[in-house]
Amino acid sequence: MITSTTGPQPADFADVRATNLAVVLRFVREHAPCSRADIAASTGLNKATVSSLIADLIDRRLVRETGLTENRVGRPATMLVLDGSPYAAIGVEINLDHVSAVATGLAGERLLTWRRAFSGGESVNRGMAEVGAIIRRVLGRMAKEERQVLGLAVAVPGLVDVQGTARIAPNLGWRDADIGGDLAKALRDPGFPIQVDNDANLAALAEQRFGAHAGASDLVCLTGGIGVGAGIILDGRLRRGRLGYSGEIGHVQLDPDGPACPCGRRGCLEVMAGIGAVLRRKVSPAEVQMEIEEAVRLARAGDAGTLATLDAVGRSLGKGVSILANLLNPEVVVLGGYYVPLAPWLLPAVHDELGRRVIALEAGGCQVVASALGHDAAALGGAARVLDSIDSGRLPGGLSRIP
Amino acid sequence: MITSTTGPQPADFADVRATNLAVVLRFVREHAPCSRADIAASTGLNKATVSSLIADLIDRRLVRETGLTENRVGRPATMLVLDGSPYAAIGVEINLDHVSAVATGLAGERLLTWRRAFSGGESVNRGMAEVGAIIRRVLGRMAKEERQVLGLAVAVPGLVDVQGTARIAPNLGWRDADIGGDLAKALRDPGFPIQVDNDANLAALAEQRFGAHAGASDLVCLTGGIGVGAGIILDGRLRRGRLGYSGEIGHVQLDPDGPACPCGRRGCLEVMAGIGAVLRRKVSPAEVQMEIEEAVRLARAGDAGTLATLDAVGRSLGKGVSILANLLNPEVVVLGGYYVPLAPWLLPAVHDELGRRVIALEAGGCQVVASALGHDAAALGGAARVLDSIDSGRLPGGLSRIP
Repeated sequence: MITSTTGPQPADFADVRATNLAVVLRFVREHAPCSRADIAASTGLNKATVSSLIADLIDRRLVRETGLTENRVGRPATMLVLDGSPYAAIGVEINLDHVSAVATGLAGERLLTWRRAFSGGESVNRGMAEVGAIIRRVLGRMAKEERQVLGLAVAVPGLVDVQGTARIAPNLGWRDADIGGDLAKALRDPGFPIQVDNDANLAALAEQRFGAHAGASDLVCLTGGIGVGAGIILDGRLRRGRLGYSGEIGHVQLDPDGPACPCGRRGCLEVMAGIGAVLRRKVSPAEVQMEIEEAVRLARAGDAGTLATLDAVGRSLGKGVSILANLLNPEVVVLGGYYVPLAPWLLPAVHDELGRRVIALEAGGCQVVASALGHDAAALGGAARVLDSIDSGRLPGGLSRIP
Repeated sequence: MITSTTGPQPADFADVRATNLAVVLRFVREHAPCSRADIAASTGLNKATVSSLIADLIDRRLVRETGLTENRVGRPATMLVLDGSPYAAIGVEINLDHVSAVATGLAGERLLTWRRAFSGGESVNRGMAEVGAIIRRVLGRMAKEERQVLGLAVAVPGLVDVQGTARIAPNLGWRDADIGGDLAKALRDPGFPIQVDNDANLAALAEQRFGAHAGASDLVCLTGGIGVGAGIILDGRLRRGRLGYSGEIGHVQLDPDGPACPCGRRGCLEVMAGIGAVLRRKVSPAEVQMEIEEAVRLARAGDAGTLATLDAVGRSLGKGVSILANLLNPEVVVLGGYYVPLAPWLLPAVHDELGRRVIALEAGGCQVVASALGHDAAALGGAARVLDSIDSGRLPGGLSRIP
C-alpha cells in the first residue's frame, strides 16, 4: 500500500480511538516511566479507557510494563515504558551523486546509517533499480534483527505531490516519477507503507524530532545545496500546502536585475544564495564537497575574495530568511546541507539583513542556526516521518514478520 | 479574563472530553439533523459516550432535539440540530477612520452590522474610549435579545502578539497597546473572553467560515489598504507563528531599486502594490474610498494612465502572491479591502505574474479571487474567531446572562 498523506488529523471525525491510542503512546514516549493513573490524570481520559488503550499498545509491543512499581498515596502503580524493540523505521535520501539510508527504532535510536554512490539520476528506471537494491539490503538487515519495518519514507530533491509522485526533480531530470509505486514493485509489495516526500520537508521533520531545536513548534529548515528548498513546520506539523508544493523558496526573486538563473528567471534566491554562488567554477555534483572544503580553507586563511563572496551570499540568504521571518514568524530557521560548514562566515551577514528587514522587533524572535544533524538529515527525516505516522495513530497491526 | 491563544489543540494532552465535546458539536453543525447513532458511527466514539456528550451539549443549549424522528432499520432515532439561540459572538474592527462591529449567532447568522466614524487613532486612550462605547451599545442590544455573549474579538491593523497586545500599529500610531486589558476595564470585566488579533488574520478566518471559498484548508487573505497584510490558513487553521507576527508581507522587498517606502526601506510590496500606489495624490484616510471610486470610474472609461497604473500595481501584487504560492502552495489567495473594486483590472496582471513565477505547474493550483464578504470582513472574522473557540472546545459554562 502506498500512502503519502500526513496521517489522520486528530479530533477530526476520524477514528477517535486511534487518536486516543496515539495520545497515550506519545504520552508514554515523553513521560516514561509513568503509570496508567498518570496518563488518565494528564489526558482527561477515564481510567477504564486508559487501561483498555494500554492493553492494546502492550499487545502491539509498543509499550511494556517495567515490573517496577512506584509507591504513592494508596497503592503501588505499575510503571509503563516504550517497548518497540521489534520495530524499525527506514528513511532514504536520493541525492545527485549518492543515496543515504537510515534505520531507527521506535524511540528514534539509530540502527544503521549507510551511504552509497548513485548514478541513477539520468533515468528514473535505473535510479529506482539502484535505490531498490539499497533498500533490499536494509530490509535484509532488519529481518536478520527480527524487526518489523513500520514504514519507509524516501526524500527526493524536487516537487512531490501529496500522492507521492515526484512531479519535477529538476537536478535529477525526473518528471512525474511514481517513485512509491516503482519501489513497491521493486520490493514486491513489502507490506509496509512507502511514502515519498520533498527532501527539505523530511529534513525539517528530522530537525523537529532529533535536531538541536527538537520540539520547536515553528521551525523552517533550508537545504543548502545547488538547489535551495524550505521545509516549513508551523504549530508542530509540516505544512505542505494544497498539493504538497510548499517550501519552494529557491526561485523567489530577490532582485529583478540580479544574475540569470538556469531556470530562465533573474535574481532567484537559488542563484544568489545557493551553494553554486560560493563555487568558483562549474563542477560536477561529486566535486561540490571538495570545492566547499576548499572555500572553508580559504575563509579560515582570511582570503579576501572568499570572505567577500561568503558575505554576499550571506546577505542574499538573509533576504530569503527575512521573507520567511516576516511571513511565518518561525522560532528558528535551521540551515542544512553545505550551509553548515560555511555557517561561521554566512551567519553574520544573515543576522544583519534579518535585523534590517524583519518588521517585528528583534526579528520576531527568529533565530538562525546551522544544523547539528549532518549530511543525512533528510534520510533521518524519512525515519522521523514514519515515526510521526505511528504517533498520529497509524499503528502497526501486529507482529507479523517481513516475508 | 483575557485570552488570545488559538484554543486547545485537539489530541494534545489537554482535556480529551472537551475535545470530544467539540468534535460532536462540529459534527452536528455540519450534518444536522443527525442522530446519536450517526455521530457514534462517524466519530468512532461509543454510543454511551456520545449520549453523555450530547446531554452536556443540550444542557448548555448548544444542541437540541428536534422532536422529529427518523425510521431506520430497527427503531426510530431522535434527530439533533444546533441550538444556540441564546448566544451571540461579537467581532469589532478598528480602522483608521471608522470602527465596525458585527454580531452573529452560533450558526453564524448575522444579528447586527454597525459602522461608526472613528477619530481615536491619535491616542490609545481616546481610541479605547470610543471603541468601548460602541461595544457597550452592542452588548446592550444583545442583552435586550436575552443572548449570552460567548466572546469578543477585536481586529487591529498591526502586529499583535499572542498575548493580544498590539505591539506596533503603525498607521494608528499605537505601540504596546494592551487593547484587551483596556477594553476589559472599559467594559468592567464583562465575563466573556476578549481576544485581540491582527486584521488580516481575522479577515482570513471570515473567509474560511463565510467566504466564497469557505472550508478551504489552505487559504491566504491579503488585506488591500494603505497597508497590506496577510492572514495565513494552512491545514484548516490560522498560522500565527511563534509570537503571533506571521503574515507581514507588506515590507517584503520586491525590488532593491524600487520606490522609497515610508518605512525607510525601498521597493516594499506595500509601496508598490498597496492601495497608495493607485492613488494620484496623498489623501486622508477618510478620502481613500472616494479616490478608489474615481479610479474605478476612470478604468471603466478606459483612461490609459489609470489602466497603466492598475496593470503595474497588479504586476507587483502578482510578485507578492507568487511568493505566497511558492512558499505555501495555498488553494486560494483572497484579495480583500480596496482590492475588491479594483480586481477586474488587477487580476489579469496578477495571474500573468503567477504563471511566470510559480515553480509548480499551473501555479500549484493557486486561485486568486476578490473577496465576496465586503468591507467588514475583519469584524465578521472577529465573530468567526469566537465561534472557532467554541468549535475548539472552549464551551460556554452555562446560561447566566450578562450582568
